[in-house]
Amino acid sequence: MSPSPSPSLSRIPFGAGGDDREVHDDTSSSRSDLGVGGGTAMRLVVPLQGVVQGRGGLVLGSVIPCALFYFFQLYLRRKKPSSSPPTSPFPSSGDLPSLSVIPRTTSRSFFSPRSGSLPAPVSSHTAAANKSDACPLSAGHRRFVDDPYHPTSNPDGVIQLGLGNNQLLLDLVRDWLERNVNASLLKGRNEDMGLGGMETYLQYDGLMDLKIAVADFMGQVLQGSVSFSPSQMVLTAGAASAIETLCFCLADPGQAILVPSPYDSEYEMNIKWRTSVDVIAVPCRSTDSFNISVAAIERAYNQAKKRGVKVRAILFSNPSNPVGNLLKRETLYDLLEFITEKNIHLIFDELLVGSVHEENNTCMNIAKILDAEDFDKSRVHMIYRLSEDLSLPHIHVGVIYSLNDSILASAAKFARFSSISVLSQRVLVTMLSDKRFILEFLHLSRARLINMHRLFARGFKDLNIDCVNGDGGFRCWVDLSKFLRSYSVKGELEMWEKLLDSAKVNMMPGSSCRCIEPGWFRLCFAALSENDVDVVMGRIRRAIDEGHKI
Amino acid sequence: MSPSPSPSLSRIPFGAGGDDREVHDDTSSSRSDLGVGGGTAMRLVVPLQGVVQGRGGLVLGSVIPCALFYFFQLYLRRKKPSSSPPTSPFPSSGDLPSLSVIPRTTSRSFFSPRSGSLPAPVSSHTAAANKSDACPLSAGHRRFVDDPYHPTSNPDGVIQLGLGNNQLLLDLVRDWLERNVNASLLKGRNEDMGLGGMETYLQYDGLMDLKIAVADFMGQVLQGSVSFSPSQMVLTAGAASAIETLCFCLADPGQAILVPSPYDSEYEMNIKWRTSVDVIAVPCRSTDSFNISVAAIERAYNQAKKRGVKVRAILFSNPSNPVGNLLKRETLYDLLEFITEKNIHLIFDELLVGSVHEENNTCMNIAKILDAEDFDKSRVHMIYRLSEDLSLPHIHVGVIYSLNDSILASAAKFARFSSISVLSQRVLVTMLSDKRFILEFLHLSRARLINMHRLFARGFKDLNIDCVNGDGGFRCWVDLSKFLRSYSVKGELEMWEKLLDSAKVNMMPGSSCRCIEPGWFRLCFAALSENDVDVVMGRIRRAIDEGHKI
Repeated sequence: MSPSPSPSLSRIPFGAGGDDREVHDDTSSSRSDLGVGGGTAMRLVVPLQGVVQGRGGLVLGSVIPCALFYFFQLYLRRKKPSSSPPTSPFPSSGDLPSLSVIPRTTSRSFFSPRSGSLPAPVSSHTAAANKSDACPLSAGHRRFVDDPYHPTSNPDGVIQLGLGNNQLLLDLVRDWLERNVNASLLKGRNEDMGLGGMETYLQYDGLMDLKIAVADFMGQVLQGSVSFSPSQMVLTAGAASAIETLCFCLADPGQAILVPSPYDSEYEMNIKWRTSVDVIAVPCRSTDSFNISVAAIERAYNQAKKRGVKVRAILFSNPSNPVGNLLKRETLYDLLEFITEKNIHLIFDELLVGSVHEENNTCMNIAKILDAEDFDKSRVHMIYRLSEDLSLPHIHVGVIYSLNDSILASAAKFARFSSISVLSQRVLVTMLSDKRFILEFLHLSRARLINMHRLFARGFKDLNIDCVNGDGGFRCWVDLSKFLRSYSVKGELEMWEKLLDSAKVNMMPGSSCRCIEPGWFRLCFAALSENDVDVVMGRIRRAIDEGHKI
Repeated sequence: MSPSPSPSLSRIPFGAGGDDREVHDDTSSSRSDLGVGGGTAMRLVVPLQGVVQGRGGLVLGSVIPCALFYFFQLYLRRKKPSSSPPTSPFPSSGDLPSLSVIPRTTSRSFFSPRSGSLPAPVSSHTAAANKSDACPLSAGHRRFVDDPYHPTSNPDGVIQLGLGNNQLLLDLVRDWLERNVNASLLKGRNEDMGLGGMETYLQYDGLMDLKIAVADFMGQVLQGSVSFSPSQMVLTAGAASAIETLCFCLADPGQAILVPSPYDSEYEMNIKWRTSVDVIAVPCRSTDSFNISVAAIERAYNQAKKRGVKVRAILFSNPSNPVGNLLKRETLYDLLEFITEKNIHLIFDELLVGSVHEENNTCMNIAKILDAEDFDKSRVHMIYRLSEDLSLPHIHVGVIYSLNDSILASAAKFARFSSISVLSQRVLVTMLSDKRFILEFLHLSRARLINMHRLFARGFKDLNIDCVNGDGGFRCWVDLSKFLRSYSVKGELEMWEKLLDSAKVNMMPGSSCRCIEPGWFRLCFAALSENDVDVVMGRIRRAIDEGHKI
């Protein structure tokens, strides 16, 4: 009943389907004499040979079943996904039969660019990445870069609400750096070793000093309710590589990860681009306030299984991005049960954990569960990053936290591809170890965050726009569907364009987050100051009013 | 005649080999009725049916050619690499049929760790990475970490000669940081934007300011003979990710890259671990002073082709690591011709370019070629990193330099997985823009390097040990084969162990660099001070003398 095991599939190279062809190349001469060629052309030639030679009896008897069989194989081959038309715009080297006839010459002029010369082949990863330029958010960001809003010097510029960066405490961080950065770079446990042990550090997955400081900081962010072990941690150059690294550890190409949607638009790049692992969106709905349903996850799992796709993990952000919901306690238990039953993994992206507005006993974050409850913890992994909670955009420090030693060991090895410069690590060690600063920082951070959230929520209420009342995050998830000209993704993107063109605000349209209900938008308010809120609301109001006139 | 084109193959997920099965699953009932199934089993059943039914004439005429054809197909299929047995030691979820019978329960005790419960499945990448722990160098490094040599405080400790870090100018760098780091972090083009534009920077592939500074620095390292364009550059978190990123851009899993050996032992991790691209070593020999032979490369290329493996690029370091040879001018031209003829890429790892001892007109570095000559440059790419030439170990800044816009665009996108912290970027911008410091630095760097190289070469001469007289690099490549107890890899590793155990020096055995001649060792001298040279030579002499007594 269950699909036959195929552990070796993952080890078959991408080009495996091409092996047939290459084997035929070597033996084509002998095999065409025998009339048993395997190429499509050969399959047609063999029966025709029989007809042309016309020897009746034995020959016809050979021709008819062979022809039937060949055409049937041909038909099946056509139906297989592997024979879909080429989508790569770049020819692979196998497509270039004429190359072998180019005469080899010692003249240097051979190298000069020839008109019509063939482009060097690139990989399918390159082709895929270069095709994925269509995200509206990037287009909006380019408009912002060309014409950025500034309250005094460019009040009519574009306001960037699409990015998720927390800049609410940049002033505090700047002050700290000014006072402390020199000392932090040059301090080490062994003064004789120069730049704080810089030169003897061989581990790619982060200095132990930094791991200890990060574990402490994460505990403080969660208000001391959880303790983290530095030895269960791998540090990477940002959350994107933390997620990608975990995917490389958990899944093989062609396998899949379930992700409740709407989800962070960056997940697809992080998960799919280089690992060739699939993302299967599990839609959440506005009627459930976009909360996760384990029944929907089970349905998606079973559908994938039916299609022969192995699901290796469930990934989601908590509080969710873009919506801001924290996972309900009961849902979390159901999920843990589900992954144990199916023998898969659970990845919690807790990037926004420090942004939870208030403690709420019906909700959970996974860190508390990992710390306290008694269950098989080897299949639950956590992602965290410093930039959000530390208000340090582009600091690029991601954290993989796992109690699975095998995963942890390979993630530490893969960290060689995303290691953090030791300069930044030393600065961060000192910053995170400055207890007084961190305490003040976290206190002020929460206050500013809650204030901005309140201002935005009130603004949308005044505009009579619905907005999900999330538990955390730096985002508002708002429903503009009643203003759409057509209730569709097309209508949503028209609305996005209008907001960018006339109101000059760049938001993230819900379709970029794979939301199945059109008209939802994500706004990030952590890159604005308090005074900007009225400007944003005024612009949205104008855009909506204009829209009503159309 | 020509192989049928299969450009879409590269887009088939790893599990493509399973497609057959999946198609069969869906249609098995109807097709087994027709007796035209495509599985191996079915191919045997069809001719047997004919024999059993015994209808002679037409039927036998059908059976004989079919049987011939089936057995021939079967034979070819057996020969294909894709049907190799599974090598992953970890069960994939598909291997766990018993899991579905675990009853689903709502009791929390369900989660408690059960004895004999199945481990959560991991990917083949994880399995491969966790298996590759056998490198002698790592074992030696652990011994060094436990008992590090220090001239006064631990004179009997282990001396680490295995790592390639340049620490010859750490004093200069340390001084500079002490004086300048504060200003560098807080300076930006727009003071109003806080941390030097930190918060509006969205590019993952490096600040343009840093690219400009790096391009300038690279030009200076090559003594002004070459100019680099910052816009042809992608910055990554270290050279390991620069190499991996290029491999992701150029090759699909199962394809291969030719690398002349002996080569840097880290190449295999960087190229193979996550991309599933193969490394094919092309051995160089001591009789050629380990210089690259295009004939050997062509032979390896043709052998790969015969095995059905597509070669997508040739990669090597220049000056070579571990040997230290610069590429001969004529060899370079032959290589360029070869890659154009075969329509493949050439990757130059110029990590050590700043360490070239003297200018030499018979040798070349690719940067000069890229800058000057007239040939199709879209298939030549260069890797560089700052840590070596800047004497800043673990600064983790790698450079991909390419004139191929498609590769460059996707590498920039993949840089999201290995982006450099903006803190380090700002420090480096200021350091590299300090022209006076850089001039002094480069001058002193060359002087110290040449001095150390001279001291080591003389030391080995005194010991009557042969040492390749390379053109550059921080390494000596020495021949200890005459001291081996058996001329084999085993003998070489015994020698390595003896050197570590009795002489307490950790060197890189040539077999780790895939050198085919046993007895060669790599020593890196750039992490030592002048006074340490005599200590190292004394220890090696003792180890050899002891060996002679055995």
